[in-house]
Amino acid sequence: MKTYLDCIPCFMQQALRAGRIATSDENKLKQILDKTGEMVKTISMHDTPAETGMMVYQIVKEVTGVYDPYKDIKQQHILETKSIYPKLEKLVANSDDRLLIAIKIAIAGNIIDLGVNKAFDIVTDVKNILKQDFAILDYLAFKKQLEKSKDILYIGDNVGESVFDKILIKELKKPVKYAVRSIPIINDVTREDAIASGLDEVAELIDSGCESPGIILDQSTPGFLKLFDKSDLIISKGQGNFEGLSECNRQVFFLLKAKCPIISNHLGIEEGSIILKEHNV
Amino acid sequence: MKTYLDCIPCFMQQALRAGRIATSDENKLKQILDKTGEMVKTISMHDTPAETGMMVYQIVKEVTGVYDPYKDIKQQHILETKSIYPKLEKLVANSDDRLLIAIKIAIAGNIIDLGVNKAFDIVTDVKNILKQDFAILDYLAFKKQLEKSKDILYIGDNVGESVFDKILIKELKKPVKYAVRSIPIINDVTREDAIASGLDEVAELIDSGCESPGIILDQSTPGFLKLFDKSDLIISKGQGNFEGLSECNRQVFFLLKAKCPIISNHLGIEEGSIILKEHNV
Repeated sequence: MKTYLDCIPCFMQQALRAGRIATSDENKLKQILDKTGEMVKTISMHDTPAETGMMVYQIVKEVTGVYDPYKDIKQQHILETKSIYPKLEKLVANSDDRLLIAIKIAIAGNIIDLGVNKAFDIVTDVKNILKQDFAILDYLAFKKQLEKSKDILYIGDNVGESVFDKILIKELKKPVKYAVRSIPIINDVTREDAIASGLDEVAELIDSGCESPGIILDQSTPGFLKLFDKSDLIISKGQGNFEGLSECNRQVFFLLKAKCPIISNHLGIEEGSIILKEHNV
Repeated sequence: MKTYLDCIPCFMQQALRAGRIATSDENKLKQILDKTGEMVKTISMHDTPAETGMMVYQIVKEVTGVYDPYKDIKQQHILETKSIYPKLEKLVANSDDRLLIAIKIAIAGNIIDLGVNKAFDIVTDVKNILKQDFAILDYLAFKKQLEKSKDILYIGDNVGESVFDKILIKELKKPVKYAVRSIPIINDVTREDAIASGLDEVAELIDSGCESPGIILDQSTPGFLKLFDKSDLIISKGQGNFEGLSECNRQVFFLLKAKCPIISNHLGIEEGSIILKEHNV
Protein backbone atom coordinates (compact mmCIF):
# COMPACT_ATOMS: atom_id res chain seq x y z
CA MET A 1 0.00 0.00 0.00
CA LYS A 2 1.36 3.39 -0.96
CA THR A 3 1.54 6.37 1.39
CA TYR A 4 -1.52 8.59 1.24
CA LEU A 5 -1.34 12.36 1.76
CA ASP A 6 -3.35 11.94 4.98
CA CYS A 7 -0.58 9.70 6.36
CA ILE A 8 1.74 12.72 6.56
CA PRO A 9 -0.03 14.68 9.34
CA CYS A 10 -0.43 11.29 11.05
CA PHE A 11 3.37 10.78 11.01
CA MET A 12 3.69 14.08 12.89
CA GLN A 13 1.16 12.86 15.47
CA GLN A 14 3.01 9.55 15.80
CA ALA A 15 6.30 11.38 16.27
CA LEU A 16 4.82 13.43 19.10
CA ARG A 17 3.09 10.43 20.71
CA ALA A 18 6.21 8.25 20.60
CA GLY A 19 8.36 11.18 21.71
CA ARG A 20 6.19 11.65 24.77
CA ILE A 21 6.64 8.01 25.72
CA ALA A 22 10.41 8.52 25.64
CA THR A 23 10.72 11.97 27.21
CA SER A 24 8.80 14.81 28.80
CA ASP A 25 11.41 17.39 27.74
CA GLU A 26 9.46 19.89 25.63
CA ASN A 27 12.60 21.05 23.79
CA LYS A 28 13.42 17.50 22.73
CA LEU A 29 9.80 16.96 21.65
CA LYS A 30 9.96 20.11 19.53
CA GLN A 31 13.24 18.85 18.02
CA ILE A 32 11.52 15.56 17.14
CA LEU A 33 8.75 17.48 15.37
CA ASP A 34 11.30 19.74 13.62
CA LYS A 35 13.19 16.73 12.27
CA THR A 36 10.01 14.87 11.32
CA GLY A 37 8.80 18.01 9.53
CA GLU A 38 12.06 18.26 7.62
CA MET A 39 11.78 14.60 6.68
CA VAL A 40 8.40 15.13 4.98
CA LYS A 41 10.01 16.25 1.71
CA THR A 42 11.96 12.99 1.51
CA ILE A 43 8.80 10.86 1.69
CA SER A 44 7.95 9.25 -1.61
CA MET A 45 4.24 8.62 -2.06
CA HIS A 46 5.21 5.29 -3.62
CA ASP A 47 6.80 4.09 -0.37
CA THR A 48 4.66 2.24 2.13
CA PRO A 49 3.67 4.11 5.33
CA ALA A 50 5.73 1.55 7.30
CA GLU A 51 8.91 2.74 5.55
CA THR A 52 8.29 6.32 6.60
CA GLY A 53 7.15 5.17 10.03
CA MET A 54 10.59 3.64 10.51
CA MET A 55 12.23 7.02 9.89
CA VAL A 56 9.88 8.71 12.36
CA TYR A 57 10.75 6.31 15.17
CA GLN A 58 14.46 6.55 14.31
CA ILE A 59 14.20 10.31 14.85
CA VAL A 60 12.60 9.68 18.27
CA LYS A 61 15.47 7.35 19.19
CA GLU A 62 18.12 9.78 17.93
CA VAL A 63 16.76 12.82 19.74
CA THR A 64 15.88 11.15 23.05
CA GLY A 65 18.60 8.50 23.15
CA VAL A 66 15.92 6.03 24.24
CA TYR A 67 16.33 2.85 22.23
CA ASP A 68 13.09 1.11 23.26
CA PRO A 69 10.61 3.70 24.59
CA TYR A 70 7.77 1.16 24.74
CA LYS A 71 9.69 -1.43 26.79
CA ASP A 72 7.69 -1.07 30.03
CA ILE A 73 4.37 -0.80 28.22
CA LYS A 74 5.15 -3.95 26.24
CA GLN A 75 5.88 -5.89 29.43
CA GLN A 76 2.62 -4.63 30.92
CA HIS A 77 0.69 -5.78 27.85
CA ILE A 78 2.22 -9.25 28.02
CA LEU A 79 1.12 -9.51 31.65
CA GLU A 80 -2.40 -8.35 30.83
CA THR A 81 -2.86 -10.65 27.87
CA LYS A 82 -1.39 -13.61 29.72
CA SER A 83 -3.87 -13.04 32.56
CA ILE A 84 -6.82 -13.66 30.21
CA TYR A 85 -5.08 -16.32 28.12
CA PRO A 86 -6.53 -19.33 30.05
CA LYS A 87 -10.08 -18.02 29.62
CA LEU A 88 -9.54 -17.58 25.90
CA GLU A 89 -8.07 -21.08 25.56
CA LYS A 90 -11.19 -22.41 27.28
CA LEU A 91 -13.35 -20.41 24.87
CA VAL A 92 -11.58 -22.12 21.96
CA ALA A 93 -11.89 -25.55 23.58
CA ASN A 94 -15.66 -25.11 24.04
CA SER A 95 -16.29 -23.75 20.57
CA ASP A 96 -18.00 -25.45 17.61
CA ASP A 97 -15.44 -23.98 15.28
CA ARG A 98 -12.16 -23.86 17.19
CA LEU A 99 -10.13 -22.48 14.28
CA LEU A 100 -12.48 -19.59 13.58
CA ILE A 101 -12.65 -18.51 17.20
CA ALA A 102 -8.86 -18.74 17.47
CA ILE A 103 -8.57 -16.49 14.38
CA LYS A 104 -10.90 -14.00 16.02
CA ILE A 105 -8.87 -14.01 19.22
CA ALA A 106 -5.68 -13.41 17.23
CA ILE A 107 -7.33 -10.45 15.46
CA ALA A 108 -8.70 -9.16 18.76
CA GLY A 109 -5.12 -8.88 19.95
CA ASN A 110 -4.48 -6.48 17.07
CA ILE A 111 -6.14 -3.67 19.08
CA ILE A 112 -2.89 -3.45 21.08
CA ASP A 113 -1.33 -1.06 18.59
CA LEU A 114 0.50 1.96 19.95
CA GLY A 115 1.23 3.35 16.49
CA VAL A 116 -2.37 4.45 15.98
CA ASN A 117 -4.18 7.15 17.88
CA LYS A 118 -6.75 4.98 19.59
CA ALA A 119 -7.20 4.23 23.26
CA PHE A 120 -7.99 0.61 24.07
CA ASP A 121 -8.85 -1.60 26.99
CA ILE A 122 -7.61 -5.12 26.35
CA VAL A 123 -10.25 -7.11 28.23
CA THR A 124 -13.28 -5.04 27.13
CA ASP A 125 -12.12 -4.73 23.52
CA VAL A 126 -11.37 -8.42 23.16
CA LYS A 127 -14.87 -9.26 24.43
CA ASN A 128 -16.40 -6.84 21.91
CA ILE A 129 -14.37 -8.15 18.98
CA LEU A 130 -15.41 -11.72 19.78
CA LYS A 131 -19.01 -10.57 19.23
CA GLN A 132 -18.14 -8.60 16.07
CA ASP A 133 -18.78 -9.92 12.53
CA PHE A 134 -16.00 -9.96 9.95
CA ALA A 135 -16.19 -7.30 7.21
CA ILE A 136 -14.17 -9.63 4.96
CA LEU A 137 -13.91 -13.34 5.78
CA ASP A 138 -12.11 -15.58 3.29
CA TYR A 139 -12.39 -18.47 5.70
CA LEU A 140 -13.02 -21.27 3.21
CA ALA A 141 -9.99 -20.30 1.14
CA PHE A 142 -7.95 -20.12 4.34
CA LYS A 143 -9.07 -23.55 5.58
CA LYS A 144 -8.42 -25.06 2.15
CA GLN A 145 -4.91 -23.61 2.03
CA LEU A 146 -4.20 -24.60 5.63
CA GLU A 147 -5.27 -28.16 5.00
CA LYS A 148 -2.82 -28.65 2.15
CA SER A 149 0.04 -26.71 3.77
CA LYS A 150 3.11 -28.39 5.16
CA ASP A 151 4.62 -25.23 6.61
CA ILE A 152 3.39 -21.82 7.67
CA LEU A 153 5.02 -18.41 7.91
CA TYR A 154 3.23 -16.30 10.51
CA ILE A 155 4.27 -12.62 10.50
CA GLY A 156 3.84 -11.08 13.94
CA ASP A 157 2.77 -7.54 14.70
CA ASN A 158 2.31 -6.11 18.21
CA VAL A 159 3.42 -7.27 21.64
CA GLY A 160 0.49 -8.61 23.67
CA GLU A 161 -1.26 -9.50 20.44
CA SER A 162 1.62 -11.97 20.24
CA VAL A 163 0.24 -13.82 23.29
CA PHE A 164 -3.04 -14.34 21.44
CA ASP A 165 -1.16 -15.43 18.32
CA LYS A 166 -0.06 -18.43 20.37
CA ILE A 167 -3.68 -19.55 20.65
CA LEU A 168 -4.14 -19.45 16.89
CA ILE A 169 -0.79 -21.09 16.17
CA LYS A 170 -1.77 -24.03 18.40
CA GLU A 171 -4.99 -24.46 16.41
CA LEU A 172 -3.19 -24.44 13.05
CA LYS A 173 -1.63 -27.80 13.96
CA LYS A 174 1.18 -27.39 11.42
CA PRO A 175 4.84 -26.34 11.79
CA VAL A 176 4.92 -22.56 12.11
CA LYS A 177 7.74 -20.08 11.69
CA TYR A 178 6.96 -16.81 13.49
CA ALA A 179 8.66 -13.71 12.02
CA VAL A 180 9.64 -10.85 14.33
CA ARG A 181 11.08 -7.35 13.89
CA SER A 182 14.87 -7.11 14.16
CA ILE A 183 14.92 -4.14 16.54
CA PRO A 184 12.36 -2.53 18.85
CA ILE A 185 10.01 -0.34 16.79
CA ILE A 186 6.91 1.06 18.50
CA ASN A 187 5.38 -1.90 20.35
CA ASP A 188 6.08 -4.40 17.57
CA VAL A 189 7.15 -7.88 18.54
CA THR A 190 10.89 -8.62 18.64
CA ARG A 191 12.53 -12.01 19.37
CA GLU A 192 12.79 -11.09 23.05
CA ASP A 193 9.09 -10.13 23.20
CA ALA A 194 8.10 -13.29 21.33
CA ILE A 195 9.89 -15.40 23.90
CA ALA A 196 8.26 -13.46 26.74
CA SER A 197 4.93 -14.16 25.02
CA GLY A 198 5.66 -17.91 25.03
CA LEU A 199 5.75 -18.13 21.24
CA ASP A 200 9.00 -20.09 21.22
CA GLU A 201 7.01 -22.99 22.72
CA VAL A 202 4.77 -23.28 19.64
CA ALA A 203 6.79 -21.84 16.74
CA GLU A 204 10.27 -21.33 15.43
CA LEU A 205 11.18 -17.65 15.77
CA ILE A 206 12.57 -16.00 12.64
CA ASP A 207 14.24 -12.65 12.24
CA SER A 208 12.54 -10.71 9.43
CA GLY A 209 15.44 -8.28 9.08
CA CYS A 210 12.95 -5.42 9.23
CA GLU A 211 13.44 -2.42 11.48
CA SER A 212 10.17 -0.86 10.31
CA PRO A 213 6.69 -1.20 11.83
CA GLY A 214 5.70 -3.55 9.03
CA ILE A 215 7.46 -5.94 6.66
CA ILE A 216 9.43 -4.29 3.86
CA LEU A 217 10.61 -7.03 1.52
CA ASP A 218 13.53 -4.93 0.22
CA GLN A 219 14.91 -4.82 3.74
CA SER A 220 14.23 -8.43 4.72
CA THR A 221 16.92 -11.04 5.30
CA PRO A 222 17.61 -13.68 2.60
CA GLY A 223 16.38 -16.28 5.11
CA PHE A 224 13.06 -14.51 5.56
CA LEU A 225 12.68 -13.97 1.81
CA LYS A 226 13.24 -17.68 1.17
CA LEU A 227 10.52 -18.53 3.69
CA PHE A 228 8.29 -15.86 2.20
CA ASP A 229 8.78 -17.45 -1.19
CA LYS A 230 8.50 -21.11 -0.22
CA SER A 231 6.04 -21.34 2.69
CA ASP A 232 2.76 -22.98 1.76
CA LEU A 233 0.70 -20.58 3.85
CA ILE A 234 1.46 -17.04 4.98
CA ILE A 235 -0.48 -15.32 7.73
CA SER A 236 0.24 -11.60 8.06
CA LYS A 237 -0.98 -9.80 11.16
CA GLY A 238 -1.93 -6.13 11.42
CA GLN A 239 -1.83 -2.91 9.44
CA GLY A 240 1.93 -2.40 9.18
CA ASN A 241 2.53 -5.78 7.55
CA PHE A 242 -0.50 -5.24 5.31
CA GLU A 243 0.99 -1.94 4.11
CA GLY A 244 4.19 -3.70 3.09
CA LEU A 245 2.65 -6.84 1.58
CA SER A 246 -0.72 -5.76 0.12
CA GLU A 247 0.73 -5.77 -3.40
CA CYS A 248 3.17 -8.67 -3.11
CA ASN A 249 3.30 -11.35 -5.78
CA ARG A 250 2.07 -14.37 -3.86
CA GLN A 251 -0.86 -15.54 -1.76
CA VAL A 252 -1.04 -14.02 1.74
CA PHE A 253 -3.84 -14.13 4.31
CA PHE A 254 -4.19 -10.81 6.12
CA LEU A 255 -5.63 -10.80 9.63
CA LEU A 256 -6.23 -7.32 10.99
CA LYS A 257 -8.46 -4.79 12.58
CA ALA A 258 -8.71 -1.62 10.45
CA LYS A 259 -7.77 1.10 12.89
CA CYS A 260 -7.23 4.12 10.67
CA PRO A 261 -9.45 5.80 8.08
CA ILE A 262 -6.83 5.46 5.34
CA ILE A 263 -6.52 1.67 5.58
CA SER A 264 -10.30 1.31 5.95
CA ASN A 265 -10.89 3.35 2.77
CA HIS A 266 -8.15 1.44 0.97
CA LEU A 267 -9.87 -1.84 1.87
CA GLY A 268 -13.37 -0.45 1.23
CA ILE A 269 -14.53 -1.31 4.74
CA GLU A 270 -15.63 0.67 7.77
CA GLU A 271 -13.09 1.82 10.35
CA GLY A 272 -13.00 -0.65 13.23
CA SER A 273 -13.83 -3.64 10.99
CA ILE A 274 -12.02 -6.95 11.36
CA ILE A 275 -10.92 -8.99 8.36
CA LEU A 276 -9.41 -12.30 7.29
CA LYS A 277 -8.58 -11.45 3.69
CA GLU A 278 -6.95 -13.59 1.06
CA HIS A 279 -4.57 -11.70 -1.21
CA ASN A 280 -3.63 -13.47 -4.39
CA VAL A 281 -1.93 -12.71 -7.70
CA MET B 1 -1.83 31.83 24.03
CA LYS B 2 1.40 30.15 23.07
CA THR B 3 1.71 27.35 20.55
CA TYR B 4 1.42 23.89 22.09
CA LEU B 5 3.31 20.89 20.69
CA ASP B 6 -0.03 19.34 19.67
CA CYS B 7 -0.69 22.36 17.44
CA ILE B 8 2.12 21.23 15.10
CA PRO B 9 0.54 18.02 13.71
CA CYS B 10 -2.68 20.09 13.51
CA PHE B 11 -0.92 22.64 11.25
CA MET B 12 -0.08 19.78 8.88
CA GLN B 13 -3.74 18.71 8.86
CA GLN B 14 -4.84 22.29 8.23
CA ALA B 15 -2.35 22.60 5.37
CA LEU B 16 -3.77 19.49 3.73
CA ARG B 17 -7.39 20.51 4.33
CA ALA B 18 -6.90 24.03 2.97
CA GLY B 19 -4.80 22.67 0.09
CA ARG B 20 -7.62 20.35 -0.92
CA ILE B 21 -10.06 23.27 -1.03
CA ALA B 22 -7.71 25.02 -3.48
CA THR B 23 -6.59 22.09 -5.64
CA SER B 24 -7.01 18.39 -6.28
CA ASP B 25 -3.49 18.09 -7.75
CA GLU B 26 -1.77 15.48 -5.54
CA ASN B 27 1.70 16.78 -6.43
CA LYS B 28 0.79 20.29 -5.33
CA LEU B 29 -0.74 18.92 -2.13
CA LYS B 30 2.47 17.02 -1.40
CA GLN B 31 4.44 20.23 -2.06
CA ILE B 32 2.23 22.05 0.46
CA LEU B 33 2.97 19.37 3.06
CA ASP B 34 6.71 19.45 2.21
CA LYS B 35 6.85 23.21 2.73
CA THR B 36 4.72 23.09 5.87
CA GLY B 37 6.98 20.34 7.21
CA GLU B 38 10.07 22.44 6.50
CA MET B 39 8.44 25.39 8.24
CA VAL B 40 8.02 23.46 11.51
CA LYS B 41 11.57 24.24 12.65
CA THR B 42 10.87 27.97 12.30
CA ILE B 43 7.89 27.83 14.68
CA SER B 44 8.61 29.40 18.04
CA MET B 45 6.57 27.90 20.86
CA HIS B 46 6.20 31.45 22.17
CA ASP B 47 4.30 32.54 19.06
CA THR B 48 0.53 32.19 18.99
CA PRO B 49 -0.94 29.43 16.81
CA ALA B 50 -2.53 32.15 14.67
CA GLU B 51 0.93 33.41 13.66
CA THR B 52 1.95 29.99 12.44
CA GLY B 53 -1.48 29.48 10.90
CA MET B 54 -0.81 32.51 8.71
CA MET B 55 2.36 30.89 7.36
CA VAL B 56 0.50 27.65 6.61
CA TYR B 57 -2.16 29.38 4.56
CA GLN B 58 0.48 31.50 2.78
CA ILE B 59 2.12 28.24 1.67
CA VAL B 60 -1.23 27.05 0.30
CA LYS B 61 -1.61 30.30 -1.64
CA GLU B 62 1.97 30.18 -2.96
CA VAL B 63 1.81 26.58 -4.15
CA THR B 64 -1.69 26.63 -5.63
CA GLY B 65 -1.79 30.23 -6.81
CA VAL B 66 -5.30 30.43 -5.34
CA TYR B 67 -5.60 33.66 -3.37
CA ASP B 68 -8.94 32.97 -1.68
CA PRO B 69 -9.66 29.22 -1.68
CA TYR B 70 -12.69 29.58 0.59
CA LYS B 71 -14.42 32.26 -1.53
CA ASP B 72 -17.34 30.11 -2.75
CA ILE B 73 -17.81 28.43 0.62
CA LYS B 74 -17.90 31.83 2.35
CA GLN B 75 -20.62 33.06 -0.02
CA GLN B 76 -22.60 29.87 0.63
CA HIS B 77 -22.33 30.38 4.40
CA ILE B 78 -23.57 33.96 4.11
CA LEU B 79 -26.61 32.72 2.18
CA GLU B 80 -27.31 29.99 4.75
CA THR B 81 -26.98 32.23 7.78
CA LYS B 82 -29.04 34.99 6.17
CA SER B 83 -31.80 32.48 5.50
CA ILE B 84 -32.26 31.85 9.24
CA TYR B 85 -31.51 35.43 10.29
CA PRO B 86 -35.18 36.56 10.47
CA LYS B 87 -36.08 33.61 12.73
CA LEU B 88 -33.18 34.42 15.05
CA GLU B 89 -34.17 38.10 15.19
CA LYS B 90 -37.68 37.01 16.20
CA LEU B 91 -36.17 34.78 18.89
CA VAL B 92 -34.34 37.78 20.31
CA ALA B 93 -37.46 39.95 20.13
CA ASN B 94 -39.53 37.38 22.05
CA SER B 95 -36.88 36.72 24.70
CA ASP B 96 -36.89 37.80 28.36
CA ASP B 97 -33.21 38.61 28.12
CA ARG B 98 -32.61 39.93 24.62
CA LEU B 99 -28.91 40.65 25.16
CA LEU B 100 -28.10 37.18 26.49
CA ILE B 101 -29.86 35.39 23.66
CA ALA B 102 -28.13 37.66 21.12
CA ILE B 103 -24.78 36.75 22.70
CA LYS B 104 -25.64 33.07 22.37
CA ILE B 105 -26.59 33.49 18.73
CA ALA B 106 -23.30 35.27 18.06
CA ILE B 107 -21.40 32.40 19.70
CA ALA B 108 -23.48 29.84 17.83
CA GLY B 109 -22.16 31.39 14.62
CA ASN B 110 -18.66 30.50 15.78
CA ILE B 111 -19.23 26.89 14.69
CA ILE B 112 -18.63 28.07 11.10
CA ASP B 113 -14.89 27.64 11.39
CA LEU B 114 -13.07 25.97 8.52
CA GLY B 115 -9.72 26.08 10.29
CA VAL B 116 -10.68 23.29 12.69
CA ASN B 117 -11.34 19.70 11.81
CA LYS B 118 -15.02 19.59 12.67
CA ALA B 119 -17.99 19.06 10.42
CA PHE B 120 -20.96 21.29 11.17
CA ASP B 121 -24.51 21.88 10.07
CA ILE B 122 -25.42 25.51 10.58
CA VAL B 123 -29.15 25.16 11.32
CA THR B 124 -28.88 22.07 13.57
CA ASP B 125 -25.82 23.31 15.44
CA VAL B 126 -27.27 26.75 16.08
CA LYS B 127 -30.42 25.14 17.55
CA ASN B 128 -28.27 22.95 19.82
CA ILE B 129 -26.08 25.80 21.01
CA LEU B 130 -29.14 27.85 21.91
CA LYS B 131 -30.07 25.04 24.32
CA GLN B 132 -26.49 24.71 25.66
CA ASP B 133 -25.35 26.21 28.98
CA PHE B 134 -22.25 28.38 29.14
CA ALA B 135 -19.11 26.81 30.67
CA ILE B 136 -17.93 30.32 31.60
CA LEU B 137 -20.39 33.22 31.70
CA ASP B 138 -19.11 36.58 32.92
CA TYR B 139 -22.42 38.16 32.00
CA LEU B 140 -22.76 40.60 34.89
CA ALA B 141 -19.28 42.02 34.26
CA PHE B 142 -20.14 42.26 30.57
CA LYS B 143 -23.43 44.07 31.18
CA LYS B 144 -21.79 46.45 33.63
CA GLN B 145 -19.01 47.31 31.17
CA LEU B 146 -21.46 47.65 28.30
CA GLU B 147 -23.63 50.03 30.28
CA LYS B 148 -20.79 52.45 30.95
CA SER B 149 -19.21 52.15 27.50
CA LYS B 150 -19.40 54.91 24.94
CA ASP B 151 -17.75 52.92 22.17
CA ILE B 152 -17.15 49.27 21.37
CA LEU B 153 -14.52 47.43 19.36
CA TYR B 154 -15.93 44.14 18.06
CA ILE B 155 -13.30 41.82 16.56
CA GLY B 156 -14.85 39.57 13.93
CA ASP B 157 -13.91 35.97 13.22
CA ASN B 158 -15.55 33.79 10.58
CA VAL B 159 -17.78 34.54 7.62
CA GLY B 160 -21.38 33.48 8.27
CA GLU B 161 -20.78 33.93 11.98
CA SER B 162 -20.52 37.57 10.88
CA VAL B 163 -24.21 37.55 9.93
CA PHE B 164 -25.09 36.52 13.50
CA ASP B 165 -22.71 39.18 14.87
CA LYS B 166 -25.12 41.72 13.36
CA ILE B 167 -27.85 40.48 15.71
CA LEU B 168 -25.65 41.01 18.75
CA ILE B 169 -24.35 44.38 17.55
CA LYS B 170 -27.94 45.64 17.20
CA GLU B 171 -28.63 44.62 20.81
CA LEU B 172 -25.53 46.38 22.14
CA LYS B 173 -27.18 49.73 21.28
CA LYS B 174 -23.85 51.57 21.30
CA PRO B 175 -21.52 52.70 18.48
CA VAL B 176 -19.56 49.68 17.29
CA LYS B 177 -16.41 49.43 15.23
CA TYR B 178 -16.12 45.96 13.64
CA ALA B 179 -12.54 44.82 12.93
CA VAL B 180 -11.88 42.58 9.92
CA ARG B 181 -8.87 40.72 8.50
CA SER B 182 -6.88 42.58 5.87
CA ILE B 183 -6.68 39.72 3.37
CA PRO B 184 -8.60 36.46 2.90
CA ILE B 185 -7.33 33.86 5.41
CA ILE B 186 -9.27 30.61 5.78
CA ASN B 187 -12.93 31.69 6.07
CA ASP B 188 -12.20 34.70 8.27
CA VAL B 189 -14.20 37.83 7.68
CA THR B 190 -12.67 40.53 5.44
CA ARG B 191 -14.17 43.95 4.66
CA GLU B 192 -15.85 42.55 1.55
CA ASP B 193 -17.37 39.65 3.55
CA ALA B 194 -18.49 42.02 6.31
CA ILE B 195 -20.35 44.12 3.75
CA ALA B 196 -21.92 41.01 2.23
CA SER B 197 -23.00 40.07 5.79
CA GLY B 198 -24.73 43.45 6.20
CA LEU B 199 -22.41 44.55 8.98
CA ASP B 200 -21.78 47.96 7.39
CA GLU B 201 -25.41 48.77 8.24
CA VAL B 202 -24.81 48.45 12.00
CA ALA B 203 -21.10 49.10 12.54
CA GLU B 204 -18.12 50.97 11.16
CA LEU B 205 -15.78 48.51 9.48
CA ILE B 206 -12.13 48.71 10.54
CA ASP B 207 -9.09 47.07 8.98
CA SER B 208 -7.15 45.22 11.67
CA GLY B 209 -4.03 45.01 9.53
CA CYS B 210 -3.84 41.31 10.32
CA GLU B 211 -3.30 38.68 7.64
CA SER B 212 -3.43 35.87 10.20
CA PRO B 213 -6.44 33.81 11.36
CA GLY B 214 -6.53 35.79 14.61
CA ILE B 215 -5.44 39.23 15.82
CA ILE B 216 -1.67 39.67 16.24
CA LEU B 217 -1.09 43.03 17.88
CA ASP B 218 2.46 43.34 16.50
CA GLN B 219 1.02 43.21 13.01
CA SER B 220 -1.99 45.45 13.55
CA THR B 221 -2.38 48.92 12.03
CA PRO B 222 -1.79 51.99 14.23
CA GLY B 223 -5.49 52.78 13.74
CA PHE B 224 -6.54 49.41 15.10
CA LEU B 225 -4.07 49.64 17.98
CA LYS B 226 -5.47 53.03 18.96
CA LEU B 227 -8.99 51.58 19.03
CA PHE B 228 -7.73 48.56 20.92
CA ASP B 229 -6.22 50.89 23.48
CA LYS B 230 -9.04 53.42 23.80
CA SER B 231 -12.32 51.52 23.26
CA ASP B 232 -14.41 51.20 26.41
CA LEU B 233 -15.47 47.65 25.59
CA ILE B 234 -13.79 45.01 23.43
CA ILE B 235 -15.60 41.92 22.24
CA SER B 236 -13.33 39.29 20.67
CA LYS B 237 -14.93 36.47 18.72
CA GLY B 238 -13.53 32.99 18.26
CA GLN B 239 -10.43 30.91 18.91
CA GLY B 240 -7.98 32.71 16.61
CA ASN B 241 -8.53 36.09 18.23
CA PHE B 242 -8.41 34.48 21.68
CA GLU B 243 -5.01 32.97 20.84
CA GLY B 244 -3.65 36.42 20.00
CA LEU B 245 -5.27 38.38 22.83
CA SER B 246 -5.53 35.96 25.77
CA GLU B 247 -2.54 37.59 27.46
CA CYS B 248 -3.06 41.21 26.38
CA ASN B 249 -2.80 44.03 28.90
CA ARG B 250 -6.39 45.26 28.97
CA GLN B 251 -9.92 44.04 29.55
CA VAL B 252 -11.39 41.95 26.71
CA PHE B 253 -14.55 39.86 26.61
CA PHE B 254 -14.02 36.62 24.71
CA LEU B 255 -17.00 34.99 23.02
CA LEU B 256 -16.23 31.59 21.58
CA LYS B 257 -16.99 27.95 21.21
CA ALA B 258 -14.00 25.77 22.21
CA LYS B 259 -13.50 23.58 19.16
CA CYS B 260 -10.11 22.01 19.76
CA PRO B 261 -8.69 20.02 22.71
CA ILE B 262 -5.77 22.42 23.13
CA ILE B 263 -7.88 25.53 23.65
CA SER B 264 -10.33 23.59 25.85
CA ASN B 265 -7.48 22.40 28.09
CA HIS B 266 -5.96 25.86 28.14
CA LEU B 267 -9.30 27.28 29.34
CA GLY B 268 -9.97 24.35 31.69
CA ILE B 269 -13.30 23.56 30.04
CA GLU B 270 -14.70 20.67 28.02
CA GLU B 271 -14.31 20.60 24.24
CA GLY B 272 -17.48 21.96 22.66
CA SER B 273 -18.18 24.38 25.52
CA ILE B 274 -19.32 27.95 24.88
CA ILE B 275 -18.00 30.86 26.87
CA LEU B 276 -18.37 34.58 27.49
CA LYS B 277 -15.18 35.21 29.42
CA GLU B 278 -13.85 38.44 30.85
CA HIS B 279 -10.10 38.81 30.57
CA ASN B 280 -8.57 41.45 32.74
CA VAL B 281 -5.14 42.58 33.92
